[in-house]
Amino acid sequence: MPPDYPSILNEIAEAAKSEFGKGKVANYIPALAQVPAEKFGIALETIRGEQFGWGDSEERFSIQSISKVFTLALAFRLEGENLWKRVGLEPSGNPFNSLVQLEYEQGIPRNPFINAGALVVTDVLLEHYADPKAAILEFIHTLTGQNDIAYDLEVARSERETGYTNAALVNFMKSHGNIRHSVAAVLDVYFHQCSIAMSCRELARAFLLFANHGAIPATGERILTKSQAKRLNAIMLTCGFYDEAGEFAFAVGLPGKSGVGGGIVAIIPGELAIAVWSPELNEHGNSVLGIKALEMFTTLTGMSIF
Amino acid sequence: MPPDYPSILNEIAEAAKSEFGKGKVANYIPALAQVPAEKFGIALETIRGEQFGWGDSEERFSIQSISKVFTLALAFRLEGENLWKRVGLEPSGNPFNSLVQLEYEQGIPRNPFINAGALVVTDVLLEHYADPKAAILEFIHTLTGQNDIAYDLEVARSERETGYTNAALVNFMKSHGNIRHSVAAVLDVYFHQCSIAMSCRELARAFLLFANHGAIPATGERILTKSQAKRLNAIMLTCGFYDEAGEFAFAVGLPGKSGVGGGIVAIIPGELAIAVWSPELNEHGNSVLGIKALEMFTTLTGMSIF
Amino acid sequence: MPPDYPSILNEIAEAAKSEFGKGKVANYIPALAQVPAEKFGIALETIRGEQFGWGDSEERFSIQSISKVFTLALAFRLEGENLWKRVGLEPSGNPFNSLVQLEYEQGIPRNPFINAGALVVTDVLLEHYADPKAAILEFIHTLTGQNDIAYDLEVARSERETGYTNAALVNFMKSHGNIRHSVAAVLDVYFHQCSIAMSCRELARAFLLFANHGAIPATGERILTKSQAKRLNAIMLTCGFYDEAGEFAFAVGLPGKSGVGGGIVAIIPGELAIAVWSPELNEHGNSVLGIKALEMFTTLTGMSIF
Amino acid sequence: MPPDYPSILNEIAEAAKSEFGKGKVANYIPALAQVPAEKFGIALETIRGEQFGWGDSEERFSIQSISKVFTLALAFRLEGENLWKRVGLEPSGNPFNSLVQLEYEQGIPRNPFINAGALVVTDVLLEHYADPKAAILEFIHTLTGQNDIAYDLEVARSERETGYTNAALVNFMKSHGNIRHSVAAVLDVYFHQCSIAMSCRELARAFLLFANHGAIPATGERILTKSQAKRLNAIMLTCGFYDEAGEFAFAVGLPGKSGVGGGIVAIIPGELAIAVWSPELNEHGNSVLGIKALEMFTTLTGMSIF
Repeated sequence: MPPDYPSILNEIAEAAKSEFGKGKVANYIPALAQVPAEKFGIALETIRGEQFGWGDSEERFSIQSISKVFTLALAFRLEGENLWKRVGLEPSGNPFNSLVQLEYEQGIPRNPFINAGALVVTDVLLEHYADPKAAILEFIHTLTGQNDIAYDLEVARSERETGYTNAALVNFMKSHGNIRHSVAAVLDVYFHQCSIAMSCRELARAFLLFANHGAIPATGERILTKSQAKRLNAIMLTCGFYDEAGEFAFAVGLPGKSGVGGGIVAIIPGELAIAVWSPELNEHGNSVLGIKALEMFTTLTGMSIF
Repeated sequence: MPPDYPSILNEIAEAAKSEFGKGKVANYIPALAQVPAEKFGIALETIRGEQFGWGDSEERFSIQSISKVFTLALAFRLEGENLWKRVGLEPSGNPFNSLVQLEYEQGIPRNPFINAGALVVTDVLLEHYADPKAAILEFIHTLTGQNDIAYDLEVARSERETGYTNAALVNFMKSHGNIRHSVAAVLDVYFHQCSIAMSCRELARAFLLFANHGAIPATGERILTKSQAKRLNAIMLTCGFYDEAGEFAFAVGLPGKSGVGGGIVAIIPGELAIAVWSPELNEHGNSVLGIKALEMFTTLTGMSIF
Repeated sequence: MPPDYPSILNEIAEAAKSEFGKGKVANYIPALAQVPAEKFGIALETIRGEQFGWGDSEERFSIQSISKVFTLALAFRLEGENLWKRVGLEPSGNPFNSLVQLEYEQGIPRNPFINAGALVVTDVLLEHYADPKAAILEFIHTLTGQNDIAYDLEVARSERETGYTNAALVNFMKSHGNIRHSVAAVLDVYFHQCSIAMSCRELARAFLLFANHGAIPATGERILTKSQAKRLNAIMLTCGFYDEAGEFAFAVGLPGKSGVGGGIVAIIPGELAIAVWSPELNEHGNSVLGIKALEMFTTLTGMSIF
Repeated sequence: MPPDYPSILNEIAEAAKSEFGKGKVANYIPALAQVPAEKFGIALETIRGEQFGWGDSEERFSIQSISKVFTLALAFRLEGENLWKRVGLEPSGNPFNSLVQLEYEQGIPRNPFINAGALVVTDVLLEHYADPKAAILEFIHTLTGQNDIAYDLEVARSERETGYTNAALVNFMKSHGNIRHSVAAVLDVYFHQCSIAMSCRELARAFLLFANHGAIPATGERILTKSQAKRLNAIMLTCGFYDEAGEFAFAVGLPGKSGVGGGIVAIIPGELAIAVWSPELNEHGNSVLGIKALEMFTTLTGMSIF
């Protein structure tokens, strides 16, 4: 008998309230700082088509680093294992935007979910697409069936205006020969991908691809091989939560990805995807309520990959 | 229908042969350097009691860092979540014996499977047991039903004679207040635990505890809570393979632990434990054939946590 | 009785020949790579107006990082001790273009002679001059009396085309708030200052300012206070030779500055300035013959600040 | 006309009073923590035999790291340039007891004045002397003419009891093959040398060796060649003040050495040695009043090597 998801989501939402006020809304760009701290939504979709939601689950927000999963899936499909010559697979012991490890490792980012790695992935997309920005959106439209998902141009512009650390990373990797297109072109795509606005509902739907071993459940369309999907899930587990990945694996035990917009998506392979949104972040840049909610979810359902 | 394990092990063993000669037998102590490079064994046990073996699966070898899982299980059972005040849960971006991260993080090791972390775990055991060396062996006897598993005193002595890096780690952590017993006492237990000799058969049997969510399948005895077992599995996945943990999760996708004696044990939660032994190591200190064998195992069986 | 400088320079030049072929001409930009490896010049000027030269002492070459002394002198005169809020005074344990230390120290460069520090100094000049490029040249014209010293625009252009590491540094410091002008403006001035072409003769003349405690000997014009001149000399001694500063202080014992164009200038306070040019560099980016020549000079003359 | 030293020392002492309370007495061992914070002494000796003192200039205190200069002088005399194969000459960008740089540089300490470097120097003395502790004292007796200068055995014992960081350093270097004697033997000599008790008067007298280019002024006995003395002075200037060496060179501009007992000794080559004692330390471990006093001394006398 499957878990009673509606009552579980209710219980999570009730309990999560006590966590409000423990984190801080991202404030490095105005568009993020203006999001009300009390926003809170959960959406859950199973690969069998069931849908459950709670709170602000239909409201779109800035997915930020969650976009790295989409661009990685695209690049991995296009490049296959060659991709790992330019970006590593190991968890990083440092914050997401650190230059230190990059220097010790000669311009090869540790993994595709730290900013440096995501920028290399973006550079890869520039090799394969004349218009990578269009290709990324089209991919998300295919995964979600929602063709109005779009870039938030104000967010993208703000990202550019304050994106000096990312510019430093691209320049540094270019000095090591690991960026092939112009610094400006890479940053332009990257700042746009971070600005994509999606709802919990849409994120859960999109991540069913990874829960369903590489095929879109609704259409049966195969996007990734089973092996590729399995591997992306492994990367999400080991690297998906900045320098808190081990803590998340320990407490929650699911592959997933977070963004500084306050979103977190996680999957149970062969079963479901669940997305949570709450803008208050802990010191590692992960949503406080999002982590709490997912921890409760695995406890209440007994579901775990371990 | 369960996989045909005997024929799968045969296929793995056949294929693994082509990997001989690609690694190097550990040579930092004489007792390890003398082990013939061509040793190769696999043992698989399911939680239902099935047993399969291939090659040198009954021959004992030095388990080395695999012992860290046993001491961690003991300490976690005794200390509960308090343990994580003294040792972290995050993957390390550095080699297993690095001092660098330890310094930046004020004497708190990143995780319990780097040497520094295992030494703190050993220090914890000194608080709870009058004779931790006896307690560790007794624990392994309980898990395996093999009461003659013992320390290899020659190996333990060799470890001590060359163990300056470990002595540096303990001294450094003691200077930060994260070691409570004498440097000599901690090192003595640690060098002994590394010297334990076990066979693939015995390792697979012992690790059924983690595959079976914390209870010994043969006796039903509960050693860890389900939650604790789940969490130990998560740590094995994210930290079990030195600075190659991400690569292993990507290629194999199972919780596990390796040792420089050439052993690797991995589990499929709810299903089985599998141990491989081949002394040739890659540059990260992991068995070349062991990793190859486990990669093939997940490919051939289709089993994965992802 | 003063030393017999002509015969000393002859002896140095004779001995230095044996060092040819031990280093490598800088090749990161074409304009530097094309300089003949066998170029070799020495010029010595005393504060009393004596001039001595040997070899290619009148031929101009790219002064590169030696320009950092001129911009630092300008900025120090303008900002006084306030300058040290934005750039440190400590030797760096890392190569000249390292990002690592910069990250640990929150965007404050260790000293004004690593690239990051020089870029902050350049940013300071942008606050004080409408046309800093003109101001820098004018300053050098004043120090040397040579009004045709100019930027090598081809070198400046090449620097820009390959200057991704410097772009990374400026972006990173801007992300920490330690760069106030546009990244493009700072880099433009910086790439130009590195391209200035001067001869050994002109460099020795210019550095008499520092030997003469802050006043130009030929005109008596005071540029820096005695205290400021003393302090710049101290910085040259502790930081003037990248991560070989300690070795240089040990072997030569004079304040000085080197550049990857193969130039080195050093001073004996109260006495003289000496410039050497030989394009072959050691692994630290310092001229092999230049260091050898200066080491011989202090040995043969017995002159030293120690 | 030489400066009026007595009135200069008076002026310094008067001004230095305003600095009391700005630092903290070292408290890592009881014997240091008990020293009254208000102790303050200055002694100055010229190579011509003049002596000047102020305050507690005759009271002995723990010289701590100043002892590194004496052991380095002994080892340099014995080993010559071979010494630099085992210890570097470059300033360290890290605190005096850091393990980080040591790891990156494979067990070769950056310079002989960080703890790791001094421990290697001590190891060198163990090769040359049957009783290095006696040899060190004998050397200091020769330099000062004071044969009752001795180890403070209580301090030495306290150092050992808390010396885990130093034990970590020695063990780590031994794992890299850069320590040849037993860890215990090296630490025993080291903890003793740190415990030597001397007065400002005696320190100034001893350091006349370095001011006088390697010969003891009182007896004419040559201990070091001129070149060796010059080189030791260079190391003192670039490395003598932990990670504040650049700041000290900038502000004071003299070769010198400090210790956490609150002592600082500096020299003016060819002229004098001056020792200051005040136990309150800044965050780098250097005496607050000591630095202030030396800064005033160079300002008031106009003496400087730059």
